[in-house]
Amino acid sequence: MGKLIVQKYGGTSVKSPERIKAVAERIKSYRDRGYDLVVVVSAMGKTTDELIDLAKQISSNPSKREMDMLLSTGEQVSCALLAMALHEIGIDAVSYTGSQIKMRTDGNFSNAKISEISTERIFKSINEGKVVIVAGFQGIDDDENIVTLGRGGSDTTAVALAAVLKTRDCEIYTDVDGVYTADPRVVRSTKKLKEISYDEMLELARLGAGVLHSRSVEFAKKYNIRLHVRSSFSYDEGTIVMPMEEMMEKFVVSGITSKEDEAKVTIREIPDRPGISARLFNELGKHKIYVNMIVQSTGHDNRASISFTVKKEDLKETVRICNELNKEFGGSAVDYKENIAIVSAVGVGMLSSYGVAGKMFQVFSEQNINIEMISTSEIGISCVIDSMYSELAVKVLHKTFIESE
Amino acid sequence: MGKLIVQKYGGTSVKSPERIKAVAERIKSYRDRGYDLVVVVSAMGKTTDELIDLAKQISSNPSKREMDMLLSTGEQVSCALLAMALHEIGIDAVSYTGSQIKMRTDGNFSNAKISEISTERIFKSINEGKVVIVAGFQGIDDDENIVTLGRGGSDTTAVALAAVLKTRDCEIYTDVDGVYTADPRVVRSTKKLKEISYDEMLELARLGAGVLHSRSVEFAKKYNIRLHVRSSFSYDEGTIVMPMEEMMEKFVVSGITSKEDEAKVTIREIPDRPGISARLFNELGKHKIYVNMIVQSTGHDNRASISFTVKKEDLKETVRICNELNKEFGGSAVDYKENIAIVSAVGVGMLSSYGVAGKMFQVFSEQNINIEMISTSEIGISCVIDSMYSELAVKVLHKTFIESE
Repeated sequence: MGKLIVQKYGGTSVKSPERIKAVAERIKSYRDRGYDLVVVVSAMGKTTDELIDLAKQISSNPSKREMDMLLSTGEQVSCALLAMALHEIGIDAVSYTGSQIKMRTDGNFSNAKISEISTERIFKSINEGKVVIVAGFQGIDDDENIVTLGRGGSDTTAVALAAVLKTRDCEIYTDVDGVYTADPRVVRSTKKLKEISYDEMLELARLGAGVLHSRSVEFAKKYNIRLHVRSSFSYDEGTIVMPMEEMMEKFVVSGITSKEDEAKVTIREIPDRPGISARLFNELGKHKIYVNMIVQSTGHDNRASISFTVKKEDLKETVRICNELNKEFGGSAVDYKENIAIVSAVGVGMLSSYGVAGKMFQVFSEQNINIEMISTSEIGISCVIDSMYSELAVKVLHKTFIESE
Repeated sequence: MGKLIVQKYGGTSVKSPERIKAVAERIKSYRDRGYDLVVVVSAMGKTTDELIDLAKQISSNPSKREMDMLLSTGEQVSCALLAMALHEIGIDAVSYTGSQIKMRTDGNFSNAKISEISTERIFKSINEGKVVIVAGFQGIDDDENIVTLGRGGSDTTAVALAAVLKTRDCEIYTDVDGVYTADPRVVRSTKKLKEISYDEMLELARLGAGVLHSRSVEFAKKYNIRLHVRSSFSYDEGTIVMPMEEMMEKFVVSGITSKEDEAKVTIREIPDRPGISARLFNELGKHKIYVNMIVQSTGHDNRASISFTVKKEDLKETVRICNELNKEFGGSAVDYKENIAIVSAVGVGMLSSYGVAGKMFQVFSEQNINIEMISTSEIGISCVIDSMYSELAVKVLHKTFIESE
């Protein structure tokens, strides 16, 4: 057996017969260099969206079991086609559904977690000299019902396979060629990172830099898999997500992000007594409203204000719940602001470097950008500002923390 | 448990979300009348053709295993959508792939035969009050590879399910509303048959009246299943394919057919000695050329002519093989004719009725139609004539044998 590598090709990488042939050529180039490969594929291009659209024409609220039955066909199609494309250029290959490799999950339809993967059949095929193609995004429950893994599911399939097959190397082919220090559409001088730590990648995912879904990064961190994020449209090296200890170069700040899909809600002057915020956030949790940043400030007369951000689509319901609770609490007012941006600096270097926060506030002050909320983590600082300053803020922070390094 | 019925809906019956909803309404009408249902579905409309086209863009000769992996998704899509449509109108339902109900086959990719079906899961779901939807056309081999059943596969799935579930009733919904005494496009006064025997249906299938594939009819005959062929676009009764003994009315001739996709090949004046025709037809069989009618006539000098019909697409190769063999045999010439029609009268009544052949030849003679070959079976007579007389022949035979009865 050669060195084993797991690769995952996303929807844009397999969007057409031509692209599938190009992926087959890439796989051949690894095979020629002696690699054994297990390849995970997503559904072709817009297939999943088209299937969802079909379902919506039939039911506004389709059964999750049947939805998973439906959507899992997308990956089955692309893995069969990729196997054919490999045969066509003389590479032996075999495709498997999640069911066929006994990709067992917790059975939570539409959002299942992988619990166990049988490696027997995969290793048998590898030992027969075959490239193994696996349909991503899918598994089975104890009754062999088909379940899907939810957002980022195919990436998670790939990382899980790397873990059980005991290889550290997992390549994630996507439509961008790596992780950048800022959105190239905003900052021209953005740089591609050669390496990034799991924690930074998770922080970037949380802050809206969506190259990888946080779930697959968490999985990779847990099983110590090196994720190479790269493009199937070029042979350039991408960005490797890896343990911080193994990184060759660590920047104080490795990325600047801006996120504009959230809104800020504030409940003013509520009594500052224990249990109030627990009550509030439990209630929001019950309604499945995801709260991102939270800031509580104590004012006078033992009264406090609580500000937090939620997804814009949840704003209406959030305000309704807050208004109800506010009556109970005896607060003075609930208000909200939609046109905000959460601008963040992320970097493991912050752990050992002082003054990043101070420098960030100074930069904002010089540009007369008012900071409405601040939140810090070990490896990131986020500020809520008016969304009209979002691009400006990203540019000046990139210049200060990245270009000047 | 109510009375169990198996239904099969073909591709045109589920070609769009609207049609799938209509099928769900029909199923509901059976449910309302107390039936338990097991429903087999084909892929939506042109889905299978589209998937084949995708594969052809990648490989001119795709692996059969991967082709089956690819094509089986079509039925999986439609069975999930039909389950959703049933839920939407308040009918509990669950969809299963061939793999999930352990539809075991001989593993012959692209043309598998069903060997065993587990009824456990199906009966469990029925007992829970669910309509069971099964993806047609597919099964698994011993290693759980997906295999498809070839032409007429979904009909065969339905008949096999009726057999193992021990119900005699199987409805086949298709785009025609039954079996007619002749092609309505040729004969205006054609009649829909209420009943037809398995053997007549097989004879019609062989002679190109393609409502049902012969395989599913053979299966139904073997397991004594009554096949109700009908349309999903109306609530009219169709035609029931049943054992001859149970038929209420038996016509001498129940159908007139014409088939124009074959060509006639003749090898003239070859020595009339044993082994010549065996050699010829074995050779054609080796090249997978399907021979339909065969007529051998003895001439003078112990020399014979052999005429037979093959699919037009196999003509070129057939003539090549015949020319080679003709040298070996020492025959005088190989010639062929493409513009022929095989016009046939089919009916169980012929078993007990004399003179059908004579009457048929007389009708042709009255119209000055030359008969080039004749072949008879227990329940049918076929004549090869020039294809220019095909419609005329069907019309006069229909008038003679059916309209005048």
